[in-house]
Amino acid sequence: MNPFLESIMNVMETMAQMKANPQKPFKKEDNKSRGDVTGIIGMAGEQTKGSLAISFLEPTIVHITSQILMEKISQLDETVVDMVGELTNVVSGGAKSILAERGYKFDMAIPTMVVGKNHVITHKTTGPIIVVPFETVAGKFFVELCFLR
Amino acid sequence: MNPFLESIMNVMETMAQMKANPQKPFKKEDNKSRGDVTGIIGMAGEQTKGSLAISFLEPTIVHITSQILMEKISQLDETVVDMVGELTNVVSGGAKSILAERGYKFDMAIPTMVVGKNHVITHKTTGPIIVVPFETVAGKFFVELCFLR
Repeated sequence: MNPFLESIMNVMETMAQMKANPQKPFKKEDNKSRGDVTGIIGMAGEQTKGSLAISFLEPTIVHITSQILMEKISQLDETVVDMVGELTNVVSGGAKSILAERGYKFDMAIPTMVVGKNHVITHKTTGPIIVVPFETVAGKFFVELCFLR
Repeated sequence: MNPFLESIMNVMETMAQMKANPQKPFKKEDNKSRGDVTGIIGMAGEQTKGSLAISFLEPTIVHITSQILMEKISQLDETVVDMVGELTNVVSGGAKSILAERGYKFDMAIPTMVVGKNHVITHKTTGPIIVVPFETVAGKFFVELCFLR
């Protein structure tokens, strides 16, 4: 999990000049995170496979995208959805580099974005699904990760 | 694309004893498919990477799940969502076997399921996104595939 948290903090700091503070993680069964837009990316290798999802409420990701592009964006449009895919890709790529140094290798799939008011994400896995809420000045977002070794 | 269509038809035939007839494929930019529940799986290998999404409206997947489990299910509950993950996994696994014989190797990530009325799926890719509607007695569902070599 930590390489992903580290990667998210790096990405938010460098791309959006925004501090993203991880809150207490919880197991998915206890709680549900809901979002208006989610970026999902699959990761697969011989030793390991997993899935990463980053869910945002509309005002949060609109604020973050405005900040990254340094222009005023007022609603969840195509640019914002594309940025969610970009963020998901970059976060996963950052974690991949960190994990590769520790001997865990995987390839990344193509990010898929979901748009829809108040949708819920689940993962088909026998392993644990960990959710980490992040606090930023733009609001909260939720990172979900499941990984099988 | 064909190994995926073939795999879907096989899976629907063997699991649900249902014929799934592929309709005319279209490129994603022309049209939008909306669903109430979607299964997404990432695929990644050294030569190739991609993402597969299968979107269902609620009545269609409830009918299909009832048929597979041979019990009456009346709404989109946890069992149905889990079945969407299972179908996504099995379809992707079937296509993987067919493609492996032709020299394309990839590993599969963990399926992620999205639940939310009328959500829309997009993919972050420079390549084409192909959508194939399928007709069944239970109604239509949509398969989206993007693949990069």
